[in-house]
Parts: sequence; C-alpha cells; structure tokens
Amino acid sequence: MSWLESSIMAKKGVAKGAANASFAITEESQGKYHYVYGPFVDPVLTVDPGAVVSAETHDAFEGKIKHETDKPSEILNFPYLNPQNGPIYVNGAEKGDALAVYIESIVPRGEQPRGTTCVMPYFGGLVSTDNTAMLHAPLPERVKKVDITLEEGTKWTDKITLPYEPFIGTIGTSPEIEAISSLQPDYYGGNMDLPDVGVGAVVYLPVNTKGALLYLGDCHAAQGDGELCGVAIEHPTVTTVRIDLIKGWTIKWPRLETKDFIMSIGSGRPMEDAARIAYRDLIAWMAADYGFTEMDAYMLLTQAGRMRLGNMVDPKYTMGASIKKSFLV
Amino acid sequence: MSWLESSIMAKKGVAKGAANASFAITEESQGKYHYVYGPFVDPVLTVDPGAVVSAETHDAFEGKIKHETDKPSEILNFPYLNPQNGPIYVNGAEKGDALAVYIESIVPRGEQPRGTTCVMPYFGGLVSTDNTAMLHAPLPERVKKVDITLEEGTKWTDKITLPYEPFIGTIGTSPEIEAISSLQPDYYGGNMDLPDVGVGAVVYLPVNTKGALLYLGDCHAAQGDGELCGVAIEHPTVTTVRIDLIKGWTIKWPRLETKDFIMSIGSGRPMEDAARIAYRDLIAWMAADYGFTEMDAYMLLTQAGRMRLGNMVDPKYTMGASIKKSFLV
Amino acid sequence: MSWLESSIMAKKGVAKGAANASFAITEESQGKYHYVYGPFVDPVLTVDPGAVVSAETHDAFEGKIKHETDKPSEILNFPYLNPQNGPIYVNGAEKGDALAVYIESIVPRGEQPRGTTCVMPYFGGLVSTDNTAMLHAPLPERVKKVDITLEEGTKWTDKITLPYEPFIGTIGTSPEIEAISSLQPDYYGGNMDLPDVGVGAVVYLPVNTKGALLYLGDCHAAQGDGELCGVAIEHPTVTTVRIDLIKGWTIKWPRLETKDFIMSIGSGRPMEDAARIAYRDLIAWMAADYGFTEMDAYMLLTQAGRMRLGNMVDPKYTMGASIKKSFLV
Amino acid sequence: MSWLESSIMAKKGVAKGAANASFAITEESQGKYHYVYGPFVDPVLTVDPGAVVSAETHDAFEGKIKHETDKPSEILNFPYLNPQNGPIYVNGAEKGDALAVYIESIVPRGEQPRGTTCVMPYFGGLVSTDNTAMLHAPLPERVKKVDITLEEGTKWTDKITLPYEPFIGTIGTSPEIEAISSLQPDYYGGNMDLPDVGVGAVVYLPVNTKGALLYLGDCHAAQGDGELCGVAIEHPTVTTVRIDLIKGWTIKWPRLETKDFIMSIGSGRPMEDAARIAYRDLIAWMAADYGFTEMDAYMLLTQAGRMRLGNMVDPKYTMGASIKKSFLV
Repeated sequence: MSWLESSIMAKKGVAKGAANASFAITEESQGKYHYVYGPFVDPVLTVDPGAVVSAETHDAFEGKIKHETDKPSEILNFPYLNPQNGPIYVNGAEKGDALAVYIESIVPRGEQPRGTTCVMPYFGGLVSTDNTAMLHAPLPERVKKVDITLEEGTKWTDKITLPYEPFIGTIGTSPEIEAISSLQPDYYGGNMDLPDVGVGAVVYLPVNTKGALLYLGDCHAAQGDGELCGVAIEHPTVTTVRIDLIKGWTIKWPRLETKDFIMSIGSGRPMEDAARIAYRDLIAWMAADYGFTEMDAYMLLTQAGRMRLGNMVDPKYTMGASIKKSFLV
Repeated sequence: MSWLESSIMAKKGVAKGAANASFAITEESQGKYHYVYGPFVDPVLTVDPGAVVSAETHDAFEGKIKHETDKPSEILNFPYLNPQNGPIYVNGAEKGDALAVYIESIVPRGEQPRGTTCVMPYFGGLVSTDNTAMLHAPLPERVKKVDITLEEGTKWTDKITLPYEPFIGTIGTSPEIEAISSLQPDYYGGNMDLPDVGVGAVVYLPVNTKGALLYLGDCHAAQGDGELCGVAIEHPTVTTVRIDLIKGWTIKWPRLETKDFIMSIGSGRPMEDAARIAYRDLIAWMAADYGFTEMDAYMLLTQAGRMRLGNMVDPKYTMGASIKKSFLV
Repeated sequence: MSWLESSIMAKKGVAKGAANASFAITEESQGKYHYVYGPFVDPVLTVDPGAVVSAETHDAFEGKIKHETDKPSEILNFPYLNPQNGPIYVNGAEKGDALAVYIESIVPRGEQPRGTTCVMPYFGGLVSTDNTAMLHAPLPERVKKVDITLEEGTKWTDKITLPYEPFIGTIGTSPEIEAISSLQPDYYGGNMDLPDVGVGAVVYLPVNTKGALLYLGDCHAAQGDGELCGVAIEHPTVTTVRIDLIKGWTIKWPRLETKDFIMSIGSGRPMEDAARIAYRDLIAWMAADYGFTEMDAYMLLTQAGRMRLGNMVDPKYTMGASIKKSFLV
Repeated sequence: MSWLESSIMAKKGVAKGAANASFAITEESQGKYHYVYGPFVDPVLTVDPGAVVSAETHDAFEGKIKHETDKPSEILNFPYLNPQNGPIYVNGAEKGDALAVYIESIVPRGEQPRGTTCVMPYFGGLVSTDNTAMLHAPLPERVKKVDITLEEGTKWTDKITLPYEPFIGTIGTSPEIEAISSLQPDYYGGNMDLPDVGVGAVVYLPVNTKGALLYLGDCHAAQGDGELCGVAIEHPTVTTVRIDLIKGWTIKWPRLETKDFIMSIGSGRPMEDAARIAYRDLIAWMAADYGFTEMDAYMLLTQAGRMRLGNMVDPKYTMGASIKKSFLV
C-alpha cells in the first residue's frame, strides 16, 4: 500500500488517506436496495472521512437469474435493475468537494454457480436497442451461469478459465436535484462499467450535494472492454472501500488513480464525445495540478495517452483517458 | 375544432376529447416551480380527464435575464434552470396508459421586452460544450431582449419580424422512479424543443406512474429547427391545454397529431439514433393502428415520411417523424 | 423564371444565368456510365458556361431490377451501382470557382412500370449495415415496381398515389485527386439524396479541378426525408440542367437557392456533424454575402433556420440548412 | 520468429510466410509519392508472395516542416499530404484474396531533429474541424521538432523520453474502383493510425483488385491512443515488410495477428460504429476459423475482448478489437 501514501487521496484527503473506523452494510442492514442515484432517500450509513465500509453487494439482477433455463425478459422488471448499496452520507462533504474511494477488496459471495451473464432482448452492443432502434427481431435470450472463486477465477468452459479481475461496475455520488437510473453512467459516476475501477485503485468522485451520498454495486468478476453483450460476469460480493473527502477539489467528472497512472473518465454519446470528455478533463487536470500548459498536455497525450473503453452498451458510453505518472514531470 | 372530433384523443380518450372543468395554475398557486421531471413532489393540481388547465409559465430563465447587458453565466444557477409548472395529477392514469394533451392556446404575458434569447458559455449547437468537450474558449456571452405580441410576433430587428408561432418547449410526464432535469428530453417528453408541439396539436405522452404527473413550461415564441444557439425566443405565457386520458394505450415515446399528420418523437444521441427511434416508433404505430405491415410502412415512409429536427443542443437531440394522414389508407 | 433573373447564378455567373447552346447526352453518347466521382476519365461533353444539357439518366440500378420477383442481392454487383452521366467539362472552370446548375426539368422515361424501390440486405436506415454492424440476420429482400407518369405521379397502391416530385439524387463535381463512389455524398456533392435538389432550384457546387467535371444521375420520382429504407422511387429520366460558372466564388460545401430560400448542404457522420456543417456554412455565407456578423447569423438561425434531412442511409448522412430570403435583410 | 511459423500467414500463405527475394524502394526509385489509395497509377514494384520489401518512407508532411517556427498552414498544400510508397503489385493476388504483411522492422532515417508533431488549424480531436464544424477560431499553430533514435526513442523534453515504439500509420490495398485520400482509413486499411500495426505484427488486408496494389507510409515513432491532436511523432524511416498472399481468404476489414492475440480493425463514424465493425468482424472470424458459434463468441468477448483506439481525428475513427489466442480453444 506504499503507493497509496503518496496518492492524491493521502495528500489532499481530510483523513490523509488513512483508515479509521470500520463499518459493514449487510443485506439486512441495507434493507431496500436502490435503483436510482439521487438525494430522495435516507442514508443507510453516516461516516466520517477515513471510514472503511464493507458492503454486501447484489449482482445486477438481484440474484433473480438462477438457472440457465431462466428467461431474463420474464424474470426482470425494468426499471428495477442494478440494485445499489447506500447511500452513504459522508460528514463534511459539500458541493464542490470530491470523494476519494480506495477500493480495498472485492470478494465473491453466495452459492455456486454465483456468476451470471446473459443475452437479453433489445440490450447489447451489437443489436437493436431502444436507443439504436431497428426493425430486427431480437436475438434469442440466453443465460450462462458460472462458478467463480477468488483464487481460480471464472470457469467459463472446460477449457477456458478467466482470471478473477473484479471491479465495481457502478459507483458514484448523488446528483444535486436529479435521481437517475443506476443503469446510467454520467458526471457523478454511476454505471461506468470500467474495469479500471478495481482493487487497488482510488476513484475520485464529484460531490454534488450535502453528504455526497455514495452508492455502489454491480461488481463484475471479469469484463472485456465495452461489455459487449451488455452483461459482464455479474456476481454478489463483499466489497470493501475506504472513503476520504477532499475539500474544495472541484472536479467535473470521475477521476481515478493507480500506482502507475492517472485517469479521467467520460461518459457520453456518441462514443467520441465520451473520449473527448475524458481527454479534455485529463488535460485540465494536468494543467491544474502538474504544471503543464493545456497545449503541452494536449501534445503529450497525443504521444503517450491511453484510452480504455468501459461500456458500449449503457445509456451513455464510458471511456477512461490516462497517462502514466512517470510522464507527469 | 372539427378535426379534433375525429382525433385519436376523441376516439380513445376517457373524456372523448371533450372539455370539462377548467383550472388555472397561477404563479402564486404554483409556488415553487420544478427543475426535474419526477415523482418526488406533490401535485399542484389534481384533475379528471377532460380538464382544461391554464398555466402561467415562466420563461426558461425564470425571468432573471432582464437586460441585454446581463451576463447569463453570472445570473443563472445551474441546475436550477427551465422551471416547470405542475405536476398535474390525472385521476385514473396508470403506468401503461397515455395522456392526450391538446394545446388550446399560448398567449404571451409579462412586461416588454418580454422575449429573451442569448448565447451562453459551453452551450449551443456550434460550440464546445460539456458533452462535446473541446479546448476552445467559449464565444462571448450575448443577450438579446425582444418585444413579442400575439398579433405581430417577435420584433427581431427594425427590418425583421418573426411571426408568433408559439409552442411548448418542455412538456411530459414523470418517469416511474427517476427525477430527470427539465433540460433533458427523453421517452416521457421533457425538453424536446420541437416546434410541432404548438397550438392546435395533440401530444400523446406515455404514463409511467400513477396519476401521470404532467409537467410543462418553456414556451417559445419562435424557433428554428435545431434551436441552434440553444436558446429560442423564450417568454412567459399563459398556456392552456386540455387533458384527456387514454387507458391501455401503451406507447414508448411521445406522439403527436394534427389535422394533417401523425408524428412519433424520438430523443437520443447521436442524432441518427433520435431519427431511428422516431421512424421506428412511427412504423410500429402504423402497423398497430393503421393496418400496415411493418415492411409496408417502412417502404412507404421511405417515399413519404417527413422528419423535423427539434433540438440539436440539449442532452439528447429530438426529431419528429411524421406521415400525412391522407396516406394512412 | 423571373426569380432566376435575380438569383446568385444570374448575378455572378459568367453567362449571367442565361441559356446558350443546348446539348444532349443520350445513353448512346454516354456509353459507359460511371460509378465514381473522379478526374480519371475523359469528359463525355465539353461546354461553355450557359450550356443547357439534357441527359438520359439511368435509375440507380441501371435498369437491372425489372420484376418484383427479382432478388437485388443476386442481380446487383457492388460497387457498380448508381451509374452517373458525365463528366461534363466546363470551359474556364478552375479550382476555387463554383458551378451553378439550374435544374430545368426532369421527365420520366422508359417502359412501365418504370419505378423501382426495394429492401436489400445490409442497407437501410433501420437495419444492420456494413457501417452499423450488428448480429441480426437481414430483413427479407423485397422489390416493388411502380408506374410513374409526369402528370399523375407514382401509383404506390390502389389507394395511394404519390405526387411526382422529382429531384436529382446524385450530382456533383470531381474531387481534385480522389475518385469516390457515386454512393457517397460529400463536400463536392455526390449522393446527397436531398429532395430540395429538384426542378426550379439552383445548386452551387465547389470546383475542385480543371473543368469542374460535372456528374449527375440517380433521379427520384419521390422520396421521404431520410430515404429510410435506402431506396427512393428510382427511375430513368431525361434531366435537363443549365450550367453556369461563378469565377472566384470559393465554397466548401454544396449550396442551393430557390425563389424563397438559400440552403447550405452538409454531409457527415454522425448526423449532428452533417447538421453542424450545414448550419456552419450557412452562417459563413450570411456573413460573407448578406451583411450579417457571424453572431447575428447564429442567433437569427436559432429562431428562423430550417433543416431538411436528405439521407440517413448513405456512407455519409446529408442535411440542408436554410433560411428564407425574406429574412436576409 | 518462432510464433510466426504458426501464424495464419504461415499456415495459409502461398509462400508459407517465408521470405524469398528482397527488394528496396528508395526515394529515388519511388519517384512520385502518392496521396490516394487507388488503382489509377502504375506499380512501383511487382513481386511474388514471399517478397521482403524495404521502403524509404517520408513523414506525413513529406519533410516540409523543418523548424519549430514553421507554420503548417502556410507550408502544407492540402490534399497533397501523407505521401505513400507503392503501389506494390503482388503477383497472383485477386479480388477475394487477402494480403499478409509481416512488419519486420522500422528504422528511423534522416537528419536530426527528424521527428515532427504539430497543432494545425481545424484538425485534431478536441477542436473544431471541417467535419465537426463549430464557430470557434482555431487554436494557435504550433510545431515541435524532436530527436529520435532507434535505441533511445524520442526526446520529448529534457525530462521526458518516449520509448521508440514505431508502427506504420497508413497501410493498405487499393480499392477496386475508387481512389481515396491517404488521410482516410477504411475497409482496405489506409490511415488507421493504430499502434498495433507495429514491428512483429502481421496485418491482413483484403484484396480488392488485381495485384492487390499495396501502399504504405506515415510511420510514427510513438503515438497515444486516439492520436489526440492529429499528429503523432511523424518521422521518415526505412520500413521493411514481408508480403505473402492468402488465396481465397475473403475478409471485409483489416485484421492483425501477433504472438498473443488476433484483432479485427474497424473504421467508421460515429466511434461506436468503428467499435461495432471491429467486434462484429472478430465474432465472424472466431466463428469461421476457431469453432465458436457467433453467440458463444459474442458472450466470450463480453468478458475477454479488448479494444484499442487508433485514431479519433481522421475522416473515419479506427478501433481494433482483439482476443488473446489462449482463449481461442
């Protein structure tokens, strides 16, 4: 955890990135899970900066898809999808601040086969959807249930095992006056489905309302870039995060930090707008905090920037633009 | 009003499209205007189908931009923009129904110059925005105040007068569990900025939650296709609508009817997705209600469909696909 | 033709918009039709400004689809589609000039049923295509043959007759060094499929290479906005145009003039880029030739601009932004 | 080179992926470089499958930008940009075949500072362009010249050195009847600006016309994902490729193979269309050659696919979708 000590979280956080009290959100204490990111519900937990919170997350289907013979279109009840833990009220957080969320661990839970993916009608990256509406009949539905272990990963087939590379699919703060479906990613985070939001990373989120109101859920055991068919390997977990608060760091979009790089995360449509947002924000960041002019940052990213595709299936697409810390000199 | 007697509203509406009791929503009775379309507030009015409601609408800036020397960026307080009247609770409305809203009249109110348009930083169709993020500095701000009368229209310059062609820029029902900014258009209506939503038209809106919860506001005295700089001729009005309820008519997107044509309205990004939604829905409509096969409708629209661009500046773009009723035989 | 006497063509043209010598391009004199817009072939005709040229155009399938039982996918041989007359070399034309092409008449020719439309695999506005690639199987192929007469229009069904509203689907000049498929619209014109390019309009085209090398073809008897399934009512014609040359009028995109309005035509993807190009060029035009500042033009178009959707099916989408001449004061 | 022996090139190639005769294309033997990909010029070289060809490539500006005080807008002469070597005629190649091009080496040449990048008006990923037309004035022009060596890479600043990670920015075959600007990427390859097209990779290109007519040029010493400002570190090189021919392997888009993965490359707008093309083609490939059903491939890529952004600045955006060979079991 040494790199964390020199992280932005450690440098700027109220708690200096250090852990204080620990909390658990169980299925029982959570009670009702949430399907929107908004300010209209009571917090499930109130913490000070430095809190470590373990949450029992559901999978994106709240565990309702149990067998490969299940029909998602009959079982699922839109818009009651992608259940979220929270919100967590962070004392001292106000509009214009940023939350820092260090992802300590993600551990699968629940009975095997605890992993679920599926092809559903009118959802996915290569099919007619409500947003990209076409005349085609949907592809046939299909459910795949898989065993997942922390040690061995996801048993995809007899021949193919996918390493356990878990991340938080959906995490964010509440908008100020809106309540937006947990299926959507946007400026406050939400359903970004970006694999970089994994164990060992710090994600920085804009605070839009008092207490920040942090939500999270939708952990994936593995996911390809773009989450092509719309459903990664969804699974229930115990996810543990450390929460700090950075006063007065006003950011417009989620940002992320690892040992090696910093990243700005944009969500939008068309996809080039997600890419533009991400790179534009990264340039602003390099100019504000690392001594570059915007033109210098623009030209350096042309040679050394990296772009990760999160999702190409949600109401907005998500991309993360990054640069190695070793170039920030 | 003879065509209205043969409208879908008249044929399918609980009140047969006829007017019953009349109501007024004044600035005073409205009290707090709303900036989101959602189910988390109390209705300002509860009516039965057949109600005629006159509402004192504010302009999109709630009247705050008073002089051409004003700076919108200093005066406006995002996200508290585009104030809406309502919500109006319609007795008997349930998820899966449709509201029919006949627009009886729109009359300008307020002191002259009562019309406002402006160029604001990071907003508009031909500039860098938060969604299409670029490195350019914004264009200089600029406010234009104009006189508007019902009879003579908008006095743009000494030489140019724009006819008064008013419409409701923002109208819709509440989402089921979301509360979404009144700046956004979507499947429930909202900030479509489509000039066809004018006097003499009937707009049909999906009901997503009990009582429908109708909101409206943001009337424009004139607007070009696309609302290019982002701000039409905004003005306060008294807008009068007749509200009916169509039980069991489940529509996915707003629809519209005039004496001459029917229209499906799609909102999305990129713009082709808005166009696809609109045409896709119109085909479904022609198949469900007018005896076409989907293939026949697809081929006929290729020859006879019309597409109106509403806005190219809001979080989603809006387009309306229509066909003349004379071809629906 | 009085308005034409005050047109840009008349004011700026070398021939003052007047007709001089007449020419005919018959199927025989054309010989080989062309499938690209480029400078690598010999002109079929060389004319002076003021020439009136009648061309026997083929339909987009070169007449190969004769029966409703035909299978387009078996008959057509991509990329040998959308055959074009020309090129016509215009004496005196050089890079940086503009051609003015007044469309005098379009008259259907050929045996009945002389009109053709169809649904083809992987082509159209609401289906999986090579560009918007999806996993769906294509819709079934379907051909519709229709009778067309100048007087009565297109007999679509027993009940539906579409008025004869012909226009030139594909018209343009040669690029400087490229040769681009006649299926594509772009800065030089090409396959714009914009109904405004009809009888009585003047289209202005950038000259990119010596002699301009004008091509045209692909006339439609009727078409809806967007040409939804990808195939309008295609038909062979005798199309007569008057060609003039405007020296030193350097335009970046096609422009169009009618009695009532001026229009800039943009082609691009996503569709908002086509819209941006069109409005951006119209603003530049209003600033250069009509005494507006760019900001004034931007704000006026917000209130009074009109946008026509040409195609939403070709390699680039086409939109035409216009404003009434009565506002250009 | 052991992996190459088990490559598709080795398995399917006429020359079994092995090297035969060697050829050199010097600046002198090339003579005129080309600015379009097309069939309208004579080959500079004719070879049999198995040929190893070393080409002296120019940088994208043909060496015209020599000093940091140069103004690209004054020096460059659009569309005479991005000069290409070739075309190379490959004996036996016919429409429906594929070329296999193994990139053996890329070595910088020319006097120091031999590397060039710049910011030009109306070009780049975060600025107003001809395609995404806006009202903003362009950013100021700026040229940066850098020293590049094979051993040490690119000296960006005193503090930042970028490793030498060269690749071919532009490579492809001729279209059948079109001649398209070397600034554009498309189904035949072209200006993809995809860093995976580097030393040690095999790129597979569709053959569209007799002899294939291979062009290449535009080598980059380093490039970030997206080539953000539009200009990577351009430099002249000696680039050596081995060319083989795969008879009857009909591919629609460029593909690529390395020791570890296979990749399909799509180019389009909006960016999601490039992503769709790439993933759609990869699914078709996995189904045709690796024993997957399309549904199985779709679901596996959802968990294990990777997407690389090539360019977000050219007339079409380019993305490469890949999967590890270890999953192709």
